[in-house]
Amino acid sequence: MNTVELIKKKRDGDALAPDEIKFLINQYTADNIPDYQFSALLMAILLNGMNVKETSALTNSMLNSGKIINISSLRGAKIDKHSTGGVGDKTSLIITPIVASTGIYVPMISGRGLGHTGGTLDKLESIPGFRTNLSLSKSIKVLKKIAAVMIGQTKEIAPADKMIYALRDVTATVESIPLITASIMSKKLAEGIDGLVLDIKTGSGAFMKSQKDSIELATSLMNTAKSFDKNVIAFITDMNQPLGNYIGNWLEVCESVQVLKGKVKNDLYALSIKLAGAMIYLGKKANSLKEGEQIAKEKIENGEAFKKFTEIVEHQGGDINYITNPSKYPKSKRIKKILSDKSGYIKEINTYQIGMASLELGAGRKTKTDIIDPKAGIVFYEKIGDRVKKGELICELHSETESKIKLAEQMISESIKFSSKKPTVLKLIKRTIK
Amino acid sequence: MNTVELIKKKRDGDALAPDEIKFLINQYTADNIPDYQFSALLMAILLNGMNVKETSALTNSMLNSGKIINISSLRGAKIDKHSTGGVGDKTSLIITPIVASTGIYVPMISGRGLGHTGGTLDKLESIPGFRTNLSLSKSIKVLKKIAAVMIGQTKEIAPADKMIYALRDVTATVESIPLITASIMSKKLAEGIDGLVLDIKTGSGAFMKSQKDSIELATSLMNTAKSFDKNVIAFITDMNQPLGNYIGNWLEVCESVQVLKGKVKNDLYALSIKLAGAMIYLGKKANSLKEGEQIAKEKIENGEAFKKFTEIVEHQGGDINYITNPSKYPKSKRIKKILSDKSGYIKEINTYQIGMASLELGAGRKTKTDIIDPKAGIVFYEKIGDRVKKGELICELHSETESKIKLAEQMISESIKFSSKKPTVLKLIKRTIK
Repeated sequence: MNTVELIKKKRDGDALAPDEIKFLINQYTADNIPDYQFSALLMAILLNGMNVKETSALTNSMLNSGKIINISSLRGAKIDKHSTGGVGDKTSLIITPIVASTGIYVPMISGRGLGHTGGTLDKLESIPGFRTNLSLSKSIKVLKKIAAVMIGQTKEIAPADKMIYALRDVTATVESIPLITASIMSKKLAEGIDGLVLDIKTGSGAFMKSQKDSIELATSLMNTAKSFDKNVIAFITDMNQPLGNYIGNWLEVCESVQVLKGKVKNDLYALSIKLAGAMIYLGKKANSLKEGEQIAKEKIENGEAFKKFTEIVEHQGGDINYITNPSKYPKSKRIKKILSDKSGYIKEINTYQIGMASLELGAGRKTKTDIIDPKAGIVFYEKIGDRVKKGELICELHSETESKIKLAEQMISESIKFSSKKPTVLKLIKRTIK
Repeated sequence: MNTVELIKKKRDGDALAPDEIKFLINQYTADNIPDYQFSALLMAILLNGMNVKETSALTNSMLNSGKIINISSLRGAKIDKHSTGGVGDKTSLIITPIVASTGIYVPMISGRGLGHTGGTLDKLESIPGFRTNLSLSKSIKVLKKIAAVMIGQTKEIAPADKMIYALRDVTATVESIPLITASIMSKKLAEGIDGLVLDIKTGSGAFMKSQKDSIELATSLMNTAKSFDKNVIAFITDMNQPLGNYIGNWLEVCESVQVLKGKVKNDLYALSIKLAGAMIYLGKKANSLKEGEQIAKEKIENGEAFKKFTEIVEHQGGDINYITNPSKYPKSKRIKKILSDKSGYIKEINTYQIGMASLELGAGRKTKTDIIDPKAGIVFYEKIGDRVKKGELICELHSETESKIKLAEQMISESIKFSSKKPTVLKLIKRTIK
């Protein structure tokens, strides 16, 4: 096969055959196709798209560039969740213990914070001692013992994805539905799962700003999952305001603990129940989504979910004293209360800006080598539709320096829009796709 | 400026600003933008296009990556011609001396054979001693003295074009109207010309197979030339059969000599008069295209054009004995006469295949390092619409080995289609665009 002819084929809008896609991925990962040819191909894919068959073949080739975790010896369903990411989205920390406490295996491979969004690995690592870089064999041992493990992508998993993602990042070829699909699914399928719940975020704090794009991505992910005979349910969920009230790594662990203990029943709780319920249904421990949700609620109420969380922390090297007693954790040097300078209803929150403000406070990375301040972040007290009086507390900023606080304060004040009339409250779950 | 953001802009279908294009070209030629980013940009340009302003800015940046020949001290018009290339297209060898004999300067920079098409440099170099690699200062001296010089692209001329063309060739980004336009025009404008005649070939032996694409390219080239205040006339001309009767480097020199001596008045003669006439008109030595053509004919009839050709050969180191007495030139070891195996009218000639057959005989290069056999080629006796009887001579193949002759014979027999009815004769000049 000839690389230039294959690029030409995609450039001219034709579909590539599975063996052609396999050739391209294998030769690229073997360094036989140079970056400059592969990036031209990526741009042609971005602009001309890929059909379902091509996207599945791409996923398959990327999946097979590395190891697929063999957990077929574990008896019982293996189910995971994937979220496209948002601000304050910490559901992984809540649903993993809920679902694992029902006996379903949850082999979760997560990522780090990217741009304005946080990452599950960074959140977990804010727990002193917690290790997300377990070896594959150690991970399988933990999974076998406690039905859950929460790790990062190891170098054995889909190495083609790592290479291709690095190239996409510097060639303006990130925003492509088939490329995003293959990147997500090659990693998720490597987990050896039977089923997957997808949480596709839409809105100002999501990567997909429009519901149309979110549905397109959800459909592409579902079609690919189905072509690998995986059961899948997708939710299109709102990301026009932070999820829950805490943003920032340790702050998000604290809120997750509150939800797991049944002390907080906010939007974060509602979405976690929805996602966990679907996982329990896919794992055949419930006969309907509704029954799955009921079981998820029970696991919180009877303390089993929280107990499972402490087990995960313990088995991955974390100090559970901070989980049972979060007030022991060090506090930020500066904690600034932001009060409203007007009265009215909160109408709009530029959630991307809130995420960026949290990053500025120290909760995220501007460059790959930046070190995260686990304590830093924002506690956001208000939601869209809430009535606020002048002088009332809107949020609390946690950081080490006054200059960071100032910058974040400015960004936040520009992000919130008020209205004199009560606005429509946003629907959290916009669509369920089975 | 940020390279990824600029790629994104073009990817999303927006127009790049002139300073953005300048940044991209300057940084790429300075090796500050890696090939893998530039190839993604090239693919985005190919798929999303560029408007007139962008194409001019791209041409300008590529032009300014190198030297612009300063011949402003030469009093009188400087006019050149560019052809998009075809099979048997040797008009440069004929029109350069015709036009130079009127006192108009013709500073012609040409290329080598590419794929199925021949190149002016290869044709000239078939003349023993002829040098096309004169230095810029030597070229200007020759131009000043005899009003014509015929050289190749030096490393000082538009180096960005050389780099970008090499990358386009291996990334399936050759077939882009704005990229082709900037490549052609950056080199032509570097010649320091006042006006340009364009010969855009269309048909089975051209790079642009359809008239629509040819008109699009002609329009793009003319718009760019005009944005640099150059006078320009374009002709869309037929390339559904070889131009003239001789294909192959020395064979084409021989036919050019016959035309310059006024001994042959075929389609090659007709097109040469048309193009030379337009150059004479642009050079203000005639008040109309018609008058320009009349002058061109006179220059052949009165022997001045042929005399000018011998001057060019002489001043560029060529042995004029071969020009005044072509029969002195060595002959191919094998010369095979191909006779028709049926009777009828010639209806269609796959001119691309004829060009490839000539290449197989030794007249072209399969790889960049192949050495051309200057004697090799085809003498093609028939034109579309001619009536041929079974056993009548169709063409003559010139080569060194029997195996090459056999391969070419096969290719040629498959390229010619007959009909029992007389087909419409093709129009040589399909359109004139002023």
